[in-house]
Amino acid sequence: MNLTVRVVDEWMAAFDAALDHRDIDQVLDLFEPEGFWRDLAAFTWNFHTAEGRVAIRAMLADCLDATAPNSWAVSQALETSNGVYQAVLTFETKVARCSAVLRLRDGRCWTLMTAMSELKGFEETVGARRPNGAPLRYEQGRRNWKSGRDREKAQLGISTQPYCVIIGAGQAGLSLGARLKQLNVPTLIIDKVDRPSDTWRQRYAALSLHSPVWYDHMPYLPFPETWPRFASKDQIADWLDAYATIMDLGIWTGAQCIGSHYDEAAGEWRLSVTREGRPFELRPKQLVFAGGFWDAPSTPQIKGQDRFQGRQFHVANLKDVDSCNGLRSIVIGAGTSGHDVSAQLWEAGSEVTMIQRSPTIVMRMDSILPGVEIFNTDAPGPKLPTELADLLAASIPNRLMAQFQAPFVAAIKAKDEAFYEDLHKAGFLYDFGDDGGGFFARGTQDPSGFYLDVGTSELIIDGRIAVRSGVSVDAIRERSVILSDGGELPADLIVYATGYRKLAALSNVLSDDIICKIGPVGGVGSGIRGDQGPWAGENRNIWKPTKQPGLWLHNGNFGLMRFFSRLLALQIKARHVELPMRVYGLS
Amino acid sequence: MNLTVRVVDEWMAAFDAALDHRDIDQVLDLFEPEGFWRDLAAFTWNFHTAEGRVAIRAMLADCLDATAPNSWAVSQALETSNGVYQAVLTFETKVARCSAVLRLRDGRCWTLMTAMSELKGFEETVGARRPNGAPLRYEQGRRNWKSGRDREKAQLGISTQPYCVIIGAGQAGLSLGARLKQLNVPTLIIDKVDRPSDTWRQRYAALSLHSPVWYDHMPYLPFPETWPRFASKDQIADWLDAYATIMDLGIWTGAQCIGSHYDEAAGEWRLSVTREGRPFELRPKQLVFAGGFWDAPSTPQIKGQDRFQGRQFHVANLKDVDSCNGLRSIVIGAGTSGHDVSAQLWEAGSEVTMIQRSPTIVMRMDSILPGVEIFNTDAPGPKLPTELADLLAASIPNRLMAQFQAPFVAAIKAKDEAFYEDLHKAGFLYDFGDDGGGFFARGTQDPSGFYLDVGTSELIIDGRIAVRSGVSVDAIRERSVILSDGGELPADLIVYATGYRKLAALSNVLSDDIICKIGPVGGVGSGIRGDQGPWAGENRNIWKPTKQPGLWLHNGNFGLMRFFSRLLALQIKARHVELPMRVYGLS
Repeated sequence: MNLTVRVVDEWMAAFDAALDHRDIDQVLDLFEPEGFWRDLAAFTWNFHTAEGRVAIRAMLADCLDATAPNSWAVSQALETSNGVYQAVLTFETKVARCSAVLRLRDGRCWTLMTAMSELKGFEETVGARRPNGAPLRYEQGRRNWKSGRDREKAQLGISTQPYCVIIGAGQAGLSLGARLKQLNVPTLIIDKVDRPSDTWRQRYAALSLHSPVWYDHMPYLPFPETWPRFASKDQIADWLDAYATIMDLGIWTGAQCIGSHYDEAAGEWRLSVTREGRPFELRPKQLVFAGGFWDAPSTPQIKGQDRFQGRQFHVANLKDVDSCNGLRSIVIGAGTSGHDVSAQLWEAGSEVTMIQRSPTIVMRMDSILPGVEIFNTDAPGPKLPTELADLLAASIPNRLMAQFQAPFVAAIKAKDEAFYEDLHKAGFLYDFGDDGGGFFARGTQDPSGFYLDVGTSELIIDGRIAVRSGVSVDAIRERSVILSDGGELPADLIVYATGYRKLAALSNVLSDDIICKIGPVGGVGSGIRGDQGPWAGENRNIWKPTKQPGLWLHNGNFGLMRFFSRLLALQIKARHVELPMRVYGLS
Repeated sequence: MNLTVRVVDEWMAAFDAALDHRDIDQVLDLFEPEGFWRDLAAFTWNFHTAEGRVAIRAMLADCLDATAPNSWAVSQALETSNGVYQAVLTFETKVARCSAVLRLRDGRCWTLMTAMSELKGFEETVGARRPNGAPLRYEQGRRNWKSGRDREKAQLGISTQPYCVIIGAGQAGLSLGARLKQLNVPTLIIDKVDRPSDTWRQRYAALSLHSPVWYDHMPYLPFPETWPRFASKDQIADWLDAYATIMDLGIWTGAQCIGSHYDEAAGEWRLSVTREGRPFELRPKQLVFAGGFWDAPSTPQIKGQDRFQGRQFHVANLKDVDSCNGLRSIVIGAGTSGHDVSAQLWEAGSEVTMIQRSPTIVMRMDSILPGVEIFNTDAPGPKLPTELADLLAASIPNRLMAQFQAPFVAAIKAKDEAFYEDLHKAGFLYDFGDDGGGFFARGTQDPSGFYLDVGTSELIIDGRIAVRSGVSVDAIRERSVILSDGGELPADLIVYATGYRKLAALSNVLSDDIICKIGPVGGVGSGIRGDQGPWAGENRNIWKPTKQPGLWLHNGNFGLMRFFSRLLALQIKARHVELPMRVYGLS
């Protein structure tokens, strides 16, 4: 470790000096020619990965003076492997305290990630900065906590305007709301459901998180050590209700935004909202979409569909299947919900056939967990703080994701060879994605086409769930489906596990002009399925400024949202207090 | 630190050998003649402090063979001060893993505290032992988490009997319920309120915790870093509701136990419970009272009381005092609620006079916090885990409490000299308790007669709240009160902040025979006010076996309950799985 500190220290001193002298050539000389600098709002007020010296030069030429980075220090040296020295650094800019993750090879920087951690003078009111609560000084006319809060809640959106409105009170909206509350940004979360948890409660019974509890912590309130490793949907629902209460968030439930107009002159939104039948206008400066991005059930049109005499529905509408003993079910789709629902139907006594058109990325849960092992606080031995694990996870440039995952994927292929052979024998098609990166390279871009196995693959292998693969359903008859290979399967129940279309909520609220202006949402432009090019390097329009002032999108799995909710909240706070800033690369 | 380890190691090796050879003389020789051994259910299946060699001999003669302690190890050496070497140890018994805190002076043990940590084979299902949640193996007929839970809750107390019933769903009942849940002890909590939080919501508006957040953590779910230092009553109420949900406890609200019978032959209780008007019989083996012990508002009989023409009520019934501009209020009592209520009335515009019959222990909040500094996770620098701080706090024998506190109290007297002088000038009577130990020696025995100042003292000092001290109210007239010194004060409102009587709830449920059999509850028998002798050394009948089989009492502030809830839960679990045990010292 001492060697790492020495190597890193030496590089950092040179880097610091070069930055200090605004000597960009010297900075570039400290990077590999193809080195990466991923910046998360520390230099660019944007998320931007500069790939190679030319891009880094362009970024620094634009941002270095205004950023004025200083006070670089090694916060933690990390394990060295394959000649790569890694360390976590801290530094400051004119306005912020920041973190960095550095990877050095042969004395030069291979990857650098810089990220804003907190705004000076606008720190979160947590820990040693927490509010006092009970007064240490009484004042006449003071209200106690509850009357103060009740009044504030009654006024917010009515006689006072929130600075920020978040649409969606699920885990995305709540996590961002909690961050903004700690930064004293007046925020109102609105959602059409009656409780923050209802979106989860209404889903199919077998649904549970497919990521382990220690990866899923929300900001400020980690799941307790009593929490199950993979929580069921209703436990998550209970948690979200409790989270909203404990974080004391301002939420309008039963409220729907039905239209918007951005007032350029005033720099604020006019949102048309109905709340329990009554119309309101909200006028926030900032508007965040924090609903699920894949929000519109997508059901294919199939010939004869309307003549089917059994039950048929999209998996989004599957609630309970208590009594389907002997029922012949056809599940169209072989992604996560296709697997979950097939197992749920089988458990309820149905005969199930899964229709799989194209290969699915399948990885066994126990095999994939080592891929997020840095987050595992249940493991014996010293733990990495979750905050540090988040930094490390974010430090890998998107371009290198598949490369970083490759050895891991290769190890899984070898370890689970028998499992994959069994899947193959059962007629199931699997692959590891277009780039061979498996789930980690795919899952964050497109939540379809993969399954982290928590048991359904075993049912497929054992033949308890039948699979017809490489085919699609061409037609539906009264009591059967006709496959593209000409086969016919009897059917009493058809479940469309055929995924979701993206961002229907956006078009319910925003004008077409704005939707066109901001362009594609999500994906890094890898060119693979569901992620059209050109290469963007960063998730498009998520957690970072869009081309529409005052418009933000917040989305991702629990772990991503924990980390990026802070970066988004800081960007909003910086606007709230009108810090001078120029966004780099918002072309 | 190395010296400490060496000194402790040497002593521990000798101690271990002596115990191993069952050589009690040799063990005694390792203690100071007046040394203390406090055992919390590790050796005695009781809480017992053996004071001096004779008492230690008696304890070991009875318990050593059955306990068979072994595997002693130093877990953490602590700071040495004044020649006292301190360390935390671990060891095992036949059935349990245990912790110990040791203090050595001149090579001999001054104080030893031994405490059970977990039962072998019955470990809590937390962390690496947490339940999996999502199945890794599907089974036909399996229920998802919610249907399983719903069914279990619907059956508990109806078609299945809980092993343990806890009366009281406040912080005491919930913390114990959470512990028992992790030990898989079927438990039902009952409370007459509609929500676990209602007991808190119904209290006076100015109420907040007078202990800092980092001392107040409940089991498994620490308060988040966003939580205020001293939470208001409604925040605590919100928290308790969320806690009950997150810990997924079985609770009957709107349920009252109106009588009981202990069936000696069956070794179980017959509890008569009404729940929402319907009668039920519950038959648990174990019954825990976890309500507030000081549960019956105590209002003095005063001549003329019934002729008073203003409003008068006990502070327990004070809800809001929104509109008392110019109202002349008399607050009878100068403890915590007397201070809180006086400030609340003053804030609401009332003229307030506090009637103080006898001196109050007053300590400024900021001055007293260093006394629980070992719990302070907000402080800069390395933190002691809360679990370790709990052990250290419990390691001080009750007999030595005032002695341990003396330097701290002396420092406060010196530091806050001007404050106390100002209080004196304002006519307020203060002292540091009969034993001079101040709050820490008193507060845990008797929750009256003290005030941890969060601001009311300043109002008294400034004369904004008037005090009449050394007097009581002799009589009440239509619009005034008559003091024992003959003075008369005009009055529109009288608040009785005159405390509570103990354990009314017990007598509503238990027979007089059982109440007599168990004897005094709480207090260590110090002989000071509210804690009649003889000396018991441990809190009587709390967290430990009573003379009534299957009857337990659980109470204390948040910090005490965090620690002792585990010890109580372990004792109940040991009975649940019928471990062989003999309780020592249950005379």
